[in-house]
Amino acid sequence: MKERLKRQLEFSLEIDKEKNVFRQTHLSGHGRNENDAEHSWHMAIMAYLLREYSNEPVDIARVMLMCLIHDVVEIDAGDTYAYDEASLATQQEREDKAKERLFSMLPQDQAEELTEIFEEFEAYETPESKFAHAMDNLQPVILNNSNGGGDWKEHGVTAEQIYGRQRKTALGSEELFEVVDRIIRENIDKGSIKE
Amino acid sequence: MKERLKRQLEFSLEIDKEKNVFRQTHLSGHGRNENDAEHSWHMAIMAYLLREYSNEPVDIARVMLMCLIHDVVEIDAGDTYAYDEASLATQQEREDKAKERLFSMLPQDQAEELTEIFEEFEAYETPESKFAHAMDNLQPVILNNSNGGGDWKEHGVTAEQIYGRQRKTALGSEELFEVVDRIIRENIDKGSIKE
Repeated sequence: MKERLKRQLEFSLEIDKEKNVFRQTHLSGHGRNENDAEHSWHMAIMAYLLREYSNEPVDIARVMLMCLIHDVVEIDAGDTYAYDEASLATQQEREDKAKERLFSMLPQDQAEELTEIFEEFEAYETPESKFAHAMDNLQPVILNNSNGGGDWKEHGVTAEQIYGRQRKTALGSEELFEVVDRIIRENIDKGSIKE
Repeated sequence: MKERLKRQLEFSLEIDKEKNVFRQTHLSGHGRNENDAEHSWHMAIMAYLLREYSNEPVDIARVMLMCLIHDVVEIDAGDTYAYDEASLATQQEREDKAKERLFSMLPQDQAEELTEIFEEFEAYETPESKFAHAMDNLQPVILNNSNGGGDWKEHGVTAEQIYGRQRKTALGSEELFEVVDRIIRENIDKGSIKE
Protein backbone atom coordinates (compact mmCIF):
# COMPACT_ATOMS: atom_id res chain seq x y z
CA MET A 1 0.00 0.00 0.00
CA LYS A 2 1.19 3.52 -0.79
CA GLU A 3 2.67 5.35 2.21
CA ARG A 4 0.18 8.20 1.76
CA LEU A 5 -2.90 5.98 1.93
CA LYS A 6 -1.40 4.00 4.80
CA ARG A 7 -1.02 7.19 6.86
CA GLN A 8 -4.55 8.31 6.03
CA LEU A 9 -5.95 4.97 7.17
CA GLU A 10 -3.86 4.94 10.35
CA PHE A 11 -5.17 8.38 11.25
CA SER A 12 -8.71 7.23 10.44
CA LEU A 13 -8.33 4.35 12.87
CA GLU A 14 -6.69 6.53 15.53
CA ILE A 15 -9.58 8.99 15.71
CA ASP A 16 -11.89 6.11 16.61
CA LYS A 17 -10.64 6.82 20.14
CA GLU A 18 -12.63 10.05 20.23
CA LYS A 19 -15.70 7.87 20.88
CA ASN A 20 -14.26 7.12 24.31
CA VAL A 21 -13.83 10.74 25.39
CA PHE A 22 -16.87 11.54 27.51
CA ARG A 23 -18.30 14.97 28.20
CA GLN A 24 -20.26 16.36 31.14
CA THR A 25 -23.38 16.70 28.98
CA HIS A 26 -25.98 13.95 29.17
CA LEU A 27 -28.02 12.65 26.25
CA SER A 28 -31.69 13.63 26.09
CA GLY A 29 -34.14 11.43 27.99
CA HIS A 30 -31.81 11.61 31.03
CA GLY A 31 -29.37 9.37 29.18
CA ARG A 32 -25.71 8.60 29.71
CA ASN A 33 -22.87 11.07 29.21
CA GLU A 34 -22.27 12.10 25.63
CA ASN A 35 -18.94 11.49 23.93
CA ASP A 36 -16.96 13.82 21.68
CA ALA A 37 -17.67 11.99 18.43
CA GLU A 38 -21.42 12.15 19.03
CA HIS A 39 -21.22 15.81 20.04
CA SER A 40 -19.25 16.65 16.89
CA TRP A 41 -21.66 14.74 14.63
CA HIS A 42 -24.57 16.58 16.23
CA MET A 43 -22.92 19.99 15.85
CA ALA A 44 -22.13 19.41 12.17
CA ILE A 45 -25.75 18.56 11.31
CA MET A 46 -27.05 21.49 13.37
CA ALA A 47 -24.60 23.80 11.60
CA TYR A 48 -26.00 22.73 8.26
CA LEU A 49 -29.64 23.07 9.33
CA LEU A 50 -29.19 26.39 11.13
CA ARG A 51 -26.75 28.08 8.76
CA GLU A 52 -29.34 30.72 7.82
CA TYR A 53 -28.93 32.20 11.33
CA SER A 54 -25.21 32.88 11.00
CA ASN A 55 -24.53 36.61 11.41
CA GLU A 56 -22.26 36.48 8.37
CA PRO A 57 -22.30 34.25 5.27
CA VAL A 58 -20.25 31.08 5.87
CA ASP A 59 -18.62 28.35 3.82
CA ILE A 60 -20.79 25.66 5.35
CA ALA A 61 -18.53 22.76 4.29
CA ARG A 62 -15.69 24.37 6.23
CA VAL A 63 -17.94 24.92 9.26
CA MET A 64 -19.02 21.28 9.18
CA LEU A 65 -15.45 20.02 8.92
CA MET A 66 -14.47 22.33 11.80
CA CYS A 67 -17.31 20.90 13.89
CA LEU A 68 -16.25 17.33 13.05
CA ILE A 69 -12.59 17.72 14.03
CA HIS A 70 -12.65 20.44 16.71
CA ASP A 71 -12.42 17.98 19.62
CA VAL A 72 -9.99 15.45 18.14
CA VAL A 73 -7.17 16.68 20.40
CA GLU A 74 -9.16 15.46 23.40
CA ILE A 75 -8.15 11.92 22.44
CA ASP A 76 -4.90 12.73 24.27
CA ALA A 77 -5.86 15.82 26.26
CA GLY A 78 -9.22 14.65 27.62
CA ASP A 79 -12.40 16.70 27.83
CA THR A 80 -12.11 19.99 29.68
CA TYR A 81 -15.40 20.98 31.27
CA ALA A 82 -16.32 24.52 30.29
CA TYR A 83 -16.66 25.59 33.94
CA ASP A 84 -13.69 23.73 35.49
CA GLU A 85 -11.10 26.48 36.16
CA ALA A 86 -8.26 24.13 37.17
CA SER A 87 -8.47 22.09 33.98
CA LEU A 88 -8.90 25.20 31.86
CA ALA A 89 -5.50 26.45 33.09
CA THR A 90 -3.61 23.50 31.55
CA GLN A 91 -5.90 22.94 28.56
CA GLN A 92 -3.81 24.82 26.00
CA GLU A 93 -0.59 22.92 26.67
CA ARG A 94 -2.29 19.53 26.68
CA GLU A 95 -4.15 20.24 23.48
CA ASP A 96 -1.10 21.63 21.65
CA LYS A 97 0.84 18.41 22.26
CA ALA A 98 -2.12 16.33 21.11
CA LYS A 99 -2.56 18.42 17.98
CA GLU A 100 1.08 17.88 17.05
CA ARG A 101 0.98 14.12 17.63
CA LEU A 102 -2.35 13.44 15.95
CA PHE A 103 -2.18 15.57 12.84
CA SER A 104 1.44 14.55 12.14
CA MET A 105 0.13 11.02 11.54
CA LEU A 106 -1.37 12.34 8.27
CA PRO A 107 0.50 13.08 5.01
CA GLN A 108 2.07 16.51 5.37
CA ASP A 109 -0.37 18.45 3.20
CA GLN A 110 -3.33 17.09 5.13
CA ALA A 111 -1.57 17.56 8.47
CA GLU A 112 -1.13 21.22 7.57
CA GLU A 113 -4.70 21.54 6.29
CA LEU A 114 -6.30 20.04 9.39
CA THR A 115 -4.01 21.98 11.71
CA GLU A 116 -5.03 25.17 9.94
CA ILE A 117 -8.74 24.39 10.24
CA PHE A 118 -8.32 23.39 13.88
CA GLU A 119 -6.41 26.58 14.67
CA GLU A 120 -8.93 28.67 12.79
CA PHE A 121 -11.64 27.23 15.02
CA GLU A 122 -9.61 27.96 18.15
CA ALA A 123 -8.87 31.54 17.10
CA TYR A 124 -12.59 32.49 17.06
CA GLU A 125 -12.04 35.09 14.36
CA THR A 126 -13.51 34.00 11.03
CA PRO A 127 -17.27 33.79 10.37
CA GLU A 128 -16.88 30.00 10.05
CA SER A 129 -15.15 29.71 13.42
CA LYS A 130 -17.69 31.94 15.14
CA PHE A 131 -20.61 29.95 13.77
CA ALA A 132 -18.97 26.59 14.63
CA HIS A 133 -18.46 27.88 18.18
CA ALA A 134 -22.12 28.91 18.29
CA MET A 135 -22.95 25.26 17.57
CA ASP A 136 -20.44 24.06 20.18
CA ASN A 137 -22.29 26.25 22.69
CA LEU A 138 -25.87 25.68 21.55
CA GLN A 139 -25.81 21.89 21.18
CA PRO A 140 -25.17 21.01 24.86
CA VAL A 141 -27.64 23.71 25.98
CA ILE A 142 -30.41 22.02 24.00
CA LEU A 143 -29.59 18.60 25.45
CA ASN A 144 -29.18 19.90 28.98
CA ASN A 145 -32.40 21.92 28.79
CA SER A 146 -34.29 18.82 27.61
CA ASN A 147 -33.09 17.16 30.83
CA GLY A 148 -34.32 19.97 33.07
CA GLY A 149 -30.87 21.56 33.30
CA GLY A 150 -29.48 18.61 35.26
CA ASP A 151 -25.88 19.11 34.11
CA TRP A 152 -25.84 22.69 35.38
CA LYS A 153 -27.44 21.66 38.66
CA GLU A 154 -24.94 18.83 39.18
CA HIS A 155 -21.97 21.18 38.78
CA GLY A 156 -23.50 24.14 40.61
CA VAL A 157 -23.00 26.33 37.56
CA THR A 158 -23.82 30.03 37.95
CA ALA A 159 -25.47 32.41 35.50
CA GLU A 160 -22.25 34.41 35.42
CA GLN A 161 -20.25 31.37 34.31
CA ILE A 162 -22.73 30.46 31.62
CA TYR A 163 -23.01 33.97 30.26
CA GLY A 164 -19.21 34.24 30.25
CA ARG A 165 -19.16 31.50 27.68
CA GLN A 166 -22.50 31.93 25.96
CA ARG A 167 -22.29 35.66 25.23
CA LYS A 168 -19.81 34.66 22.54
CA THR A 169 -22.53 32.59 20.89
CA ALA A 170 -23.88 35.96 19.70
CA LEU A 171 -20.65 36.50 17.73
CA GLY A 172 -21.74 33.62 15.50
CA SER A 173 -25.49 34.12 15.62
CA GLU A 174 -27.46 36.78 17.43
CA GLU A 175 -30.68 34.95 16.70
CA LEU A 176 -29.43 31.68 18.20
CA PHE A 177 -27.98 33.53 21.18
CA GLU A 178 -31.53 34.74 21.87
CA VAL A 179 -32.61 31.09 22.05
CA VAL A 180 -29.79 30.28 24.45
CA ASP A 181 -30.51 33.37 26.52
CA ARG A 182 -34.18 32.40 26.87
CA ILE A 183 -33.21 28.87 27.96
CA ILE A 184 -30.72 30.21 30.51
CA ARG A 185 -33.29 32.59 31.98
CA GLU A 186 -35.86 29.79 32.26
CA ASN A 187 -33.31 27.60 34.02
CA ILE A 188 -32.40 30.38 36.45
CA ASP A 189 -36.11 30.81 37.21
CA LYS A 190 -36.56 27.17 38.04
CA GLY A 191 -33.34 26.97 40.03
CA SER A 192 -31.23 24.77 37.72
CA ILE A 193 -28.72 27.59 37.26
CA LYS A 194 -27.57 29.64 40.25
CA GLU A 195 -28.27 33.33 39.98
CA MET B 1 -39.86 31.87 18.79
CA LYS B 2 -40.54 31.67 15.07
CA GLU B 3 -42.24 28.45 13.97
CA ARG B 4 -39.41 27.74 11.51
CA LEU B 5 -36.66 27.90 14.13
CA LYS B 6 -38.79 25.95 16.59
CA ARG B 7 -39.12 23.08 14.10
CA GLN B 8 -35.40 23.13 13.34
CA LEU B 9 -34.55 22.92 17.04
CA GLU B 10 -37.07 20.14 17.66
CA PHE B 11 -35.55 18.10 14.86
CA SER B 12 -32.07 18.83 16.24
CA LEU B 13 -33.13 17.44 19.60
CA GLU B 14 -34.91 14.44 18.06
CA ILE B 15 -31.82 13.20 16.21
CA ASP B 16 -30.01 12.97 19.54
CA LYS B 17 -31.68 9.55 19.69
CA GLU B 18 -29.38 8.26 16.96
CA LYS B 19 -26.70 7.97 19.66
CA ASN B 20 -28.70 5.11 21.15
CA VAL B 21 -28.89 3.03 17.98
CA PHE B 22 -26.14 0.45 18.27
CA ARG B 23 -24.46 -1.41 15.43
CA GLN B 24 -22.83 -4.82 15.26
CA THR B 25 -19.41 -3.24 14.79
CA HIS B 26 -17.17 -2.86 17.84
CA LEU B 27 -14.87 0.08 18.53
CA SER B 28 -11.13 -0.47 18.10
CA GLY B 29 -9.27 -1.88 21.10
CA HIS B 30 -12.00 -4.56 21.45
CA GLY B 31 -14.35 -1.88 22.68
CA ARG B 32 -18.11 -1.72 23.01
CA ASN B 33 -20.55 -1.68 20.10
CA GLU B 34 -20.49 1.46 18.01
CA ASN B 35 -23.58 3.62 17.60
CA ASP B 36 -24.92 5.26 14.45
CA ALA B 37 -23.94 8.82 15.36
CA GLU B 38 -20.33 7.78 15.95
CA HIS B 39 -20.26 5.74 12.75
CA SER B 40 -21.63 8.69 10.76
CA TRP B 41 -19.15 11.13 12.27
CA HIS B 42 -16.30 8.75 11.44
CA MET B 43 -17.50 8.25 7.85
CA ALA B 44 -17.79 12.00 7.22
CA ILE B 45 -14.21 12.67 8.31
CA MET B 46 -12.91 9.70 6.34
CA ALA B 47 -14.80 10.93 3.27
CA TYR B 48 -13.04 14.27 3.54
CA LEU B 49 -9.59 12.76 4.07
CA LEU B 50 -9.92 10.09 1.38
CA ARG B 51 -11.80 12.08 -1.27
CA GLU B 52 -8.82 11.89 -3.66
CA TYR B 53 -9.58 8.16 -4.10
CA SER B 54 -13.12 8.67 -5.38
CA ASN B 55 -13.44 7.24 -8.91
CA GLU B 56 -15.24 10.41 -9.99
CA PRO B 57 -14.98 14.02 -8.75
CA VAL B 58 -17.43 14.63 -5.90
CA ASP B 59 -19.03 17.58 -4.14
CA ILE B 60 -17.41 16.71 -0.83
CA ALA B 61 -19.80 18.84 1.26
CA ARG B 62 -22.70 16.82 -0.13
CA VAL B 63 -20.89 13.55 0.55
CA MET B 64 -20.21 14.61 4.14
CA LEU B 65 -23.82 15.62 4.72
CA MET B 66 -24.95 12.32 3.22
CA CYS B 67 -22.64 10.46 5.60
CA LEU B 68 -23.94 12.44 8.57
CA ILE B 69 -27.65 11.80 7.93
CA HIS B 70 -27.69 8.43 6.13
CA ASP B 71 -28.62 6.44 9.26
CA VAL B 72 -31.06 8.89 10.86
CA VAL B 73 -34.05 6.69 9.93
CA GLU B 74 -32.67 4.01 12.23
CA ILE B 75 -33.92 6.10 15.17
CA ASP B 76 -37.29 4.48 14.43
CA ALA B 77 -36.31 1.56 12.21
CA GLY B 78 -33.35 0.24 14.21
CA ASP B 79 -30.03 -0.93 12.81
CA THR B 80 -30.24 -3.65 10.17
CA TYR B 81 -27.11 -5.81 10.18
CA ALA B 82 -25.68 -6.08 6.68
CA TYR B 83 -25.77 -9.89 6.77
CA ASP B 84 -29.13 -10.48 8.52
CA GLU B 85 -31.47 -11.63 5.74
CA ALA B 86 -34.67 -11.58 7.82
CA SER B 87 -34.23 -7.95 8.87
CA LEU B 88 -33.14 -6.93 5.39
CA ALA B 89 -36.53 -8.08 4.05
CA THR B 90 -38.47 -5.54 6.12
CA GLN B 91 -35.84 -2.79 6.15
CA GLN B 92 -37.29 -0.71 3.32
CA GLU B 93 -40.77 -0.41 4.81
CA ARG B 94 -39.47 0.41 8.29
CA GLU B 95 -37.09 3.04 6.97
CA ASP B 96 -39.66 4.67 4.69
CA LYS B 97 -41.99 5.28 7.62
CA ALA B 98 -39.14 6.68 9.69
CA LYS B 99 -38.01 8.97 6.90
CA GLU B 100 -41.50 10.42 6.60
CA ARG B 101 -41.91 10.99 10.33
CA LEU B 102 -38.46 12.43 11.00
CA PHE B 103 -37.92 14.74 8.07
CA SER B 104 -41.47 16.11 8.28
CA MET B 105 -40.51 17.61 11.64
CA LEU B 106 -38.41 20.16 9.68
CA PRO B 107 -39.67 23.22 7.78
CA GLN B 108 -40.90 22.00 4.40
CA ASP B 109 -37.95 23.19 2.30
CA GLN B 110 -35.47 21.45 4.59
CA ALA B 111 -37.66 18.35 4.83
CA GLU B 112 -37.54 18.13 1.05
CA GLU B 113 -33.83 18.84 0.91
CA LEU B 114 -32.87 16.20 3.45
CA THR B 115 -35.26 13.66 1.95
CA GLU B 116 -33.65 14.25 -1.42
CA ILE B 117 -30.12 13.79 -0.05
CA PHE B 118 -31.20 10.70 1.88
CA GLU B 119 -32.84 9.18 -1.20
CA GLU B 120 -29.84 10.06 -3.34
CA PHE B 121 -27.67 8.09 -0.93
CA GLU B 122 -30.06 5.13 -1.03
CA ALA B 123 -30.23 5.11 -4.84
CA TYR B 124 -26.47 4.45 -5.18
CA GLU B 125 -26.33 6.27 -8.51
CA THR B 126 -24.50 9.61 -8.20
CA PRO B 127 -20.73 9.87 -7.62
CA GLU B 128 -21.49 11.37 -4.18
CA SER B 129 -23.72 8.46 -3.21
CA LYS B 130 -21.23 5.87 -4.44
CA PHE B 131 -18.39 7.46 -2.51
CA ALA B 132 -20.49 7.84 0.66
CA HIS B 133 -21.40 4.14 0.38
CA ALA B 134 -17.70 3.31 -0.01
CA MET B 135 -17.17 5.02 3.37
CA ASP B 136 -20.16 3.18 4.87
CA ASN B 137 -18.47 -0.06 3.80
CA LEU B 138 -14.84 0.80 4.53
CA GLN B 139 -15.27 2.31 8.01
CA PRO B 140 -16.54 -0.84 9.79
CA VAL B 141 -13.98 -2.99 7.94
CA ILE B 142 -11.16 -0.92 9.37
CA LEU B 143 -12.55 -1.15 12.90
CA ASN B 144 -13.34 -4.85 12.63
CA ASN B 145 -9.94 -5.63 11.15
CA SER B 146 -8.25 -3.78 14.02
CA ASN B 147 -10.07 -6.18 16.34
CA GLY B 148 -8.89 -9.32 14.50
CA GLY B 149 -12.15 -9.63 12.55
CA GLY B 150 -14.13 -10.44 15.68
CA ASP B 151 -17.44 -9.11 14.34
CA TRP B 152 -17.29 -11.39 11.31
CA LYS B 153 -16.33 -14.36 13.47
CA GLU B 154 -19.16 -13.72 15.91
CA HIS B 155 -21.76 -13.72 13.13
CA GLY B 156 -20.20 -16.53 11.08
CA VAL B 157 -19.99 -14.24 8.06
CA THR B 158 -18.83 -15.83 4.79
CA ALA B 159 -16.57 -14.40 2.09
CA GLU B 160 -19.51 -14.59 -0.32
CA GLN B 161 -21.65 -12.41 1.96
CA ILE B 162 -18.91 -9.86 2.42
CA TYR B 163 -18.04 -9.64 -1.23
CA GLY B 164 -21.74 -9.32 -2.08
CA ARG B 165 -21.71 -6.03 -0.24
CA GLN B 166 -18.13 -4.90 -0.62
CA ARG B 167 -17.83 -5.33 -4.40
CA LYS B 168 -19.98 -2.19 -4.59
CA THR B 169 -17.27 -0.30 -2.69
CA ALA B 170 -15.41 -0.36 -6.01
CA LEU B 171 -18.21 1.71 -7.57
CA GLY B 172 -17.13 4.58 -5.32
CA SER B 173 -13.41 3.90 -5.19
CA GLU B 174 -11.46 1.16 -6.91
CA GLU B 175 -8.38 2.05 -4.90
CA LEU B 176 -10.19 1.76 -1.57
CA PHE B 177 -11.85 -1.47 -2.69
CA GLU B 178 -8.34 -2.89 -3.09
CA VAL B 179 -7.70 -2.06 0.57
CA VAL B 180 -10.93 -3.77 1.61
CA ASP B 181 -10.18 -6.75 -0.63
CA ARG B 182 -6.74 -7.21 0.95
CA ILE B 183 -8.24 -7.04 4.45
CA ILE B 184 -10.92 -9.59 3.54
CA ARG B 185 -8.36 -12.00 2.10
CA GLU B 186 -6.18 -11.69 5.21
CA ASN B 187 -9.19 -12.40 7.41
CA ILE B 188 -10.14 -15.44 5.32
CA ASP B 189 -6.57 -16.72 5.68
CA LYS B 190 -6.65 -16.43 9.44
CA GLY B 191 -10.13 -17.91 9.72
CA SER B 192 -12.09 -14.84 10.84
CA ILE B 193 -14.20 -14.97 7.66
CA LYS B 194 -15.55 -18.34 6.39
CA GLU B 195 -14.40 -19.24 2.91
